Amino acid sequence: MYVKLIAHTPEPDRVVAAAAKLCYSASSAVEIFDGLTTENCAKFLQILQKSGHMSPFEHANFTFAIDGISRVTSHQLVRHRMASFSQQSQRYVGMEENECILPPSLDKIEGAKVIFTKQIESAKEAYNKLVALGIPKEDARFVLPHGGLTRIVVTMNARELHHFFSLRICHRAQWEIQSLATAMLKEVKKVAPLLFSKAGPSCISKGKCEEARPCGKPIGPDEL
Amino acid sequence: MYVKLIAHTPEPDRVVAAAAKLCYSASSAVEIFDGLTTENCAKFLQILQKSGHMSPFEHANFTFAIDGISRVTSHQLVRHRMASFSQQSQRYVGMEENECILPPSLDKIEGAKVIFTKQIESAKEAYNKLVALGIPKEDARFVLPHGGLTRIVVTMNARELHHFFSLRICHRAQWEIQSLATAMLKEVKKVAPLLFSKAGPSCISKGKCEEARPCGKPIGPDEL
Amino acid sequence: MYVKLIAHTPEPDRVVAAAAKLCYSASSAVEIFDGLTTENCAKFLQILQKSGHMSPFEHANFTFAIDGISRVTSHQLVRHRMASFSQQSQRYVGMEENECILPPSLDKIEGAKVIFTKQIESAKEAYNKLVALGIPKEDARFVLPHGGLTRIVVTMNARELHHFFSLRICHRAQWEIQSLATAMLKEVKKVAPLLFSKAGPSCISKGKCEEARPCGKPIGPDEL
Amino acid sequence: MYVKLIAHTPEPDRVVAAAAKLCYSASSAVEIFDGLTTENCAKFLQILQKSGHMSPFEHANFTFAIDGISRVTSHQLVRHRMASFSQQSQRYVGMEENECILPPSLDKIEGAKVIFTKQIESAKEAYNKLVALGIPKEDARFVLPHGGLTRIVVTMNARELHHFFSLRICHRAQWEIQSLATAMLKEVKKVAPLLFSKAGPSCISKGKCEEARPCGKPIGPDEL
Repeated sequence: MYVKLIAHTPEPDRVVAAAAKLCYSASSAVEIFDGLTTENCAKFLQILQKSGHMSPFEHANFTFAIDGISRVTSHQLVRHRMASFSQQSQRYVGMEENECILPPSLDKIEGAKVIFTKQIESAKEAYNKLVALGIPKEDARFVLPHGGLTRIVVTMNARELHHFFSLRICHRAQWEIQSLATAMLKEVKKVAPLLFSKAGPSCISKGKCEEARPCGKPIGPDEL
Repeated sequence: MYVKLIAHTPEPDRVVAAAAKLCYSASSAVEIFDGLTTENCAKFLQILQKSGHMSPFEHANFTFAIDGISRVTSHQLVRHRMASFSQQSQRYVGMEENECILPPSLDKIEGAKVIFTKQIESAKEAYNKLVALGIPKEDARFVLPHGGLTRIVVTMNARELHHFFSLRICHRAQWEIQSLATAMLKEVKKVAPLLFSKAGPSCISKGKCEEARPCGKPIGPDEL
Repeated sequence: MYVKLIAHTPEPDRVVAAAAKLCYSASSAVEIFDGLTTENCAKFLQILQKSGHMSPFEHANFTFAIDGISRVTSHQLVRHRMASFSQQSQRYVGMEENECILPPSLDKIEGAKVIFTKQIESAKEAYNKLVALGIPKEDARFVLPHGGLTRIVVTMNARELHHFFSLRICHRAQWEIQSLATAMLKEVKKVAPLLFSKAGPSCISKGKCEEARPCGKPIGPDEL
Repeated sequence: MYVKLIAHTPEPDRVVAAAAKLCYSASSAVEIFDGLTTENCAKFLQILQKSGHMSPFEHANFTFAIDGISRVTSHQLVRHRMASFSQQSQRYVGMEENECILPPSLDKIEGAKVIFTKQIESAKEAYNKLVALGIPKEDARFVLPHGGLTRIVVTMNARELHHFFSLRICHRAQWEIQSLATAMLKEVKKVAPLLFSKAGPSCISKGKCEEARPCGKPIGPDEL
């Protein structure tokens, strides 16, 4: 899995703080923006998060290039509708060399990995044979496994990212999207440390688990 | 493939016409609703579509139960973000008996179907062996083919359906989602004939193809 | 203020429960729908709400005719983006007889109501004079007061309604939209008692206030 | 009216082109991004627009500070739901000095401006009196005119901006939002000339009017 933040709103912490401050101020957005210090920003963003006034977080956008996740995971990812996606097409791009994600559970049970990899290999062979016979790529892909790799460009704003992190970093989420979401959070924390200081599942954001069926292993404040 | 309209806004044609009429009228919505004849409705809905004033179409909603489409197609379907989806989970539901869609192109090339069905069979066996060994369902599914069947409940409003039909009934769309969209259009035409009288790709809705690369076989007015 | 539910998904409780059950079941949506008893429904919807799995609530849609709210309130209402609106146009509909909402606070302070009503009356006169002179309606309306009445048709699904009720029935919301939201909740409870049994601000839905600055007067379980 | 682009996705033309190219390529997003020349970009973005494949345009976001528009216009603006807004609150910010937009039509009819400005002045006085008496700001504003000024921060992506420009720069749109949309287009053209080269109403984007009732004065290619 490869996750890189390829573009984002410049100075995301300040853009959000300025937009939010506009709601309660007689000054113009530009005056507010120019007058904001880092300390003011931090304080103001904390108040917004505490009071659940998250709409100003929408003004900061983040674009990720994601490589080497399975289609199992991209299918979950694109269910987040407040986001923009451009995904590699299996109608137009040949999958002759397509690799597959190996779930970690395969290493824990004797014999599982052999069955899995043999099956994956045979799917690739069948795909290649079908394409060689003249079956269109868009039909040959019907035999490809869900675990096969895909590439996708994703843009989400900071509000939706908070929502995404709250659901998908949680230990109850599927393991691969947990890794993806954690890698995305690491990327955005580098450029917007204030916006995402409290981002994560409820064990992080609220300090206590709000899941109906807790995992019993809450994430510590320094783990993310 | 099985497509059934399981619920919808009652009297969808009239609800949309009444909402639209409200924008231009000094009367209340309820008065307008009660005063609308079928002729008025038809005339008014035509004007709306001709002038591109489609927002009132959002007030009519349609819920479909869809069975027996491939995950190739459900993946395209859920990319329509102005819609609501509940899809059968492969984390929680066992796929021991999961069948697969056979693309029609397999019948046109000697030898293709044997390769395809053998591969599908072997994927099912591998899945069952992995689950029997103790691999979680959510990991065993990584070997399942994209062509495997899924079930999904979908709700879209009439505006989004118009958009969906314009893209997905077009001959340039992938063949399986073409069938799905055509089946959905048949269902909604039964209960909202006025709302969907002109629905379809541009060869239907505009009377001429607007695709950058036309298919050369426009759909006739009586085909849908 | 006049609020009437003019259309909704039939059997909303069952549609949502069936869609949700599909995610975890090997049966088809139609089988599930037909097999659901009221008891099963109630139990299942409770689990969904407790676990925060609210997406199936999107399959039930509700359309309201709303008359006699101020533009102050319609402006807040249309900020809910997961909804569909058709509002009476001030470009096309004459406002010669437009009435105005009188805030209750006017009754508590001597002299306030006179100032208010005189001002409202003078705005109507100015509007009428401008229109009589030939100023287009769309320009004459610039003098009309924010408190002036409007009409709007609104469609929201049950998930968005839950969100709307949680924010807008809260005592910290503006008083007119509080009344509107409360009236809308009363309407939907008649046809979907299970879906909305726990709807409202956090004092109702969670049993305790989650506002940063509580009002100190939580709403009792039987008040809504 | 004051419109300033305060933040945007850096290199918006290239981000969109790279995301779009990913769909049809076996290379990674980062490789594609680094390999794109300005010529390639221009060519590729033209193909996208011609074929109506607009979803990659969503990856480029633009944040505007807007000052000095009327509430008439902000009400139209916030109806665009694929966008993010932070607007100055009339519940929390005092409107003692609030100015009002004067529609140009007032200059064309003798006597109109006097009626208008007198009315606006009297609204301000009534507001100030009510606030002085102790009426809450959120209630006193009910007498304020729709033409009164507001401030708003808006974020839209390039796809929604194309949609917004197509509707709102058109001569059939209300005049104030026409000016606003035109000013916004000027701002984004400075930083994303390729993305917006064809943006505007159908007279610009398609080279011919597609309105049901054309204005008769199509905008020339060099006017925007």
